[in-house]
Amino acid sequence: MKTCSTTVRVRYSEIDKMNVAHNASYLHWFEIGRTELLRQIGYPYRQLEEDGIMLPVAEANCRYRIPARYDDKLEIRTSVLELKKRTVKLSCEIYRAEDNTLLATGYTVHICVDIASGAITSLPEKFTSAIKI
Amino acid sequence: MKTCSTTVRVRYSEIDKMNVAHNASYLHWFEIGRTELLRQIGYPYRQLEEDGIMLPVAEANCRYRIPARYDDKLEIRTSVLELKKRTVKLSCEIYRAEDNTLLATGYTVHICVDIASGAITSLPEKFTSAIKI
Amino acid sequence: MKTCSTTVRVRYSEIDKMNVAHNASYLHWFEIGRTELLRQIGYPYRQLEEDGIMLPVAEANCRYRIPARYDDKLEIRTSVLELKKRTVKLSCEIYRAEDNTLLATGYTVHICVDIASGAITSLPEKFTSAIKI
Amino acid sequence: MKTCSTTVRVRYSEIDKMNVAHNASYLHWFEIGRTELLRQIGYPYRQLEEDGIMLPVAEANCRYRIPARYDDKLEIRTSVLELKKRTVKLSCEIYRAEDNTLLATGYTVHICVDIASGAITSLPEKFTSAIKI
Repeated sequence: MKTCSTTVRVRYSEIDKMNVAHNASYLHWFEIGRTELLRQIGYPYRQLEEDGIMLPVAEANCRYRIPARYDDKLEIRTSVLELKKRTVKLSCEIYRAEDNTLLATGYTVHICVDIASGAITSLPEKFTSAIKI
Repeated sequence: MKTCSTTVRVRYSEIDKMNVAHNASYLHWFEIGRTELLRQIGYPYRQLEEDGIMLPVAEANCRYRIPARYDDKLEIRTSVLELKKRTVKLSCEIYRAEDNTLLATGYTVHICVDIASGAITSLPEKFTSAIKI
Repeated sequence: MKTCSTTVRVRYSEIDKMNVAHNASYLHWFEIGRTELLRQIGYPYRQLEEDGIMLPVAEANCRYRIPARYDDKLEIRTSVLELKKRTVKLSCEIYRAEDNTLLATGYTVHICVDIASGAITSLPEKFTSAIKI
Repeated sequence: MKTCSTTVRVRYSEIDKMNVAHNASYLHWFEIGRTELLRQIGYPYRQLEEDGIMLPVAEANCRYRIPARYDDKLEIRTSVLELKKRTVKLSCEIYRAEDNTLLATGYTVHICVDIASGAITSLPEKFTSAIKI
């Protein structure tokens, strides 16, 4: 299945007074990771929403190993852990790009929801086939 | 015209590594201030949106005098500076509640927009009369 | 062991275009919950840091059940799940205050770190005794 | 004087329920702009802090013309408006990269502060000479 790597710099607003990235910042980076994953498989999230589908987060988890610090260049590696009929589970790893140190690992689980009705629905075939290649 | 006072605590995520609240945090506090102002005049922003009106920010300004720090209790004082047919300008002052020290001053200018059409429109009479009392 | 309840309103900046609170917002609310827990047991986090101790997040988890929406008043219920020599695991539940609906559940694991040396250390007795009462 | 252009994508967490970037997001982009400006002149902000100097924001202003939306690629153009002995005023313009539309304009004023003493001080010659080239 598809994997994706993208980079981001730690913003001044993302760190706290210990010069450590705030724990919630990682969930923002996870989001950047999956946004780029979808773009790379040719089915951007913006397009998915225009097709009437959204993929809200049903669960998020992060284990923090080594702190990311101000202005660090981070590599976000996203991959598919599990693809079911109505849900997809993504793995996310955050590395410090400079020395390839693993800083954090986590995952998010997404449910496929029909925007118009609000009902849980099957992941579109266009999505599942693109993410499998 | 109406004024409003409300309090908020500085969150750990809102400060940076100098133990100083991030400059963007103040705009969030301004928003809390005007949200409470509208609630107090009996026309909550949620209701305004349900009535098909939104008040996007056309300009924001903040002068930072003394830094807000982690866990400070802040008092947000909001008042109407200028009320025109289609715009409203709000003043916002941030005080450290503990010793009533003025930390920052600013303002936001809001345009009245009809959500359905996206066009600029007059502020609803219900709003202007409520804010004048 | 100690539990704590506190309330917060969903900010406009915390929701996304589906009028659903962003998944990272819950981690901010978890933080507000534990900050208040520590304040209520008489050992505020600010004091803890002044005593040379910090409690960084080693793991965070959130399960999202029902979306929090703009201006919802939320009740954050925090309790101690597990207290070890060097770590503490906190449970966090987010309720919609209006109708007492459970919106999300989660937990955070914190390690006790000596600020000066950066080394993992034992939770101070002052902390463990206060949290047990 | 030096100018700098850099790009950023609008994050899902940065928009609100009107699919419009939150007004505070622009201050984060301004920060990204000046961070890159300093990097390009060869005196990164991280280095500046290591040299004992910080440049806190004394005033921030933003005029919002056209909303930035989810996943828009933005170009941030930063330039020096005014360089004084102890302060520097930066201009910031946000463009939608796709069609070069100007979305917002603003500025920030920064004071030079000695980190150790907390006192206002002169901008280091290394900074002023680098930014003038």
